Amino acid sequence: MSTQNISQHIKVTVDAIVFGYNQEQGISVLLIKRKIEPYTLQWALPGGFVHDEETLEEAAERELKEEAGISINYLEQLFTFGKPDRDPRARIISVAYFGLVKSTDFSLFAATDAAEAQWFNIYELPQLAFDHAEILHKAIERLRAKITYEPIGFELLNRKFLFSDLEQLYMKLLGREIDRRNFKRKVMSLGLVVELNEKAPALAAGRPGKLYSFDKEKYQQLKIKGFDLDKLI
Amino acid sequence: MSTQNISQHIKVTVDAIVFGYNQEQGISVLLIKRKIEPYTLQWALPGGFVHDEETLEEAAERELKEEAGISINYLEQLFTFGKPDRDPRARIISVAYFGLVKSTDFSLFAATDAAEAQWFNIYELPQLAFDHAEILHKAIERLRAKITYEPIGFELLNRKFLFSDLEQLYMKLLGREIDRRNFKRKVMSLGLVVELNEKAPALAAGRPGKLYSFDKEKYQQLKIKGFDLDKLI
Repeated sequence: MSTQNISQHIKVTVDAIVFGYNQEQGISVLLIKRKIEPYTLQWALPGGFVHDEETLEEAAERELKEEAGISINYLEQLFTFGKPDRDPRARIISVAYFGLVKSTDFSLFAATDAAEAQWFNIYELPQLAFDHAEILHKAIERLRAKITYEPIGFELLNRKFLFSDLEQLYMKLLGREIDRRNFKRKVMSLGLVVELNEKAPALAAGRPGKLYSFDKEKYQQLKIKGFDLDKLI
Repeated sequence: MSTQNISQHIKVTVDAIVFGYNQEQGISVLLIKRKIEPYTLQWALPGGFVHDEETLEEAAERELKEEAGISINYLEQLFTFGKPDRDPRARIISVAYFGLVKSTDFSLFAATDAAEAQWFNIYELPQLAFDHAEILHKAIERLRAKITYEPIGFELLNRKFLFSDLEQLYMKLLGREIDRRNFKRKVMSLGLVVELNEKAPALAAGRPGKLYSFDKEKYQQLKIKGFDLDKLI
């Protein structure tokens, strides 16, 4: 039996929300300038139609390569957006994927359907095509929720870092201040981060700061099973 | 511009995972026996092809009505399953939705593409069609994660209940014992549940138990903003 007799006119795309972290500039998101209709020359999330023989993840990875010249192979599914009128061309549902990278690790290079590819600070965004503002909003929410139960930072900070670098990362991602004393107590009690017997070179008038590093094994472990914080249960 | 020139042969379905709670029998899931090819007469999750003009949620609600005779209008999106070979007919991606109801509130009635509709205890499942075992597994995981940061029970327990009923609900959902003393302390400190000035009729040799009720306003509030438990931040 085939599905030829199913009268359905829906196409499937993927969109990718790639957040970039940069210690100086905070959190940005990768956008491309569209070269084709609709919304020509407007900024949008990278994405496109899924090929028949590839998985949804592969489609998102391929589009990132084609439209921004970057290879990212650890994307996570965010949500599927399917309102009937979200695309002026036809009924198109989009499966959105997101990821978080160190933006300085990547050189952008626009190709195929994109005229440009660029990082935008998440607080200084241009107008976005389609429902991409809504998709991005949901991705930011998810990212913020996620970092409260799963470790981040291993791929985003240098191998040795000041504790304040980790605090900055969390504050930038959350978009708010954190209780630094409490934060440090919890992070250290999880065994996620170890204090090194080393100090950073003194900056100007400041004291040299202690250096820290992630415990890689503990990090992977917590990534899989989640934080063992005080939970309801 | 249209999408006629996009050569894509992918169809879109929805599947619904409806969990049912019953104080005596625990957690069950709604399955239907397929009437059509493929997997004829095998048990599967209710679901089907999305119509061009309906939202994904509407498609899931419609399929539940058609295949099991029930109306549920608070489904949440779980995940989109899109491996190229997950359906023997063609490339079909499925957007899965899940919900949790009091199973005794619903009378099942199989229709259209379903030969039967039935609740199955999640520990006594038949073999499932397609990748539905994988979908169900993911739904159980999500449900378990969800109840640790969002309240449940309002729609599942009677208006007045014994505290042990709420404990039972959590233990049944989690599939394990909980620290009952700790659990009660946290639930009460959230203001989620209030102690009534009333006791349940004594059962056999037991003492009459105190009755509790949800604080509806607090419940809705926590449903939206999540628990304010000890978090990393």
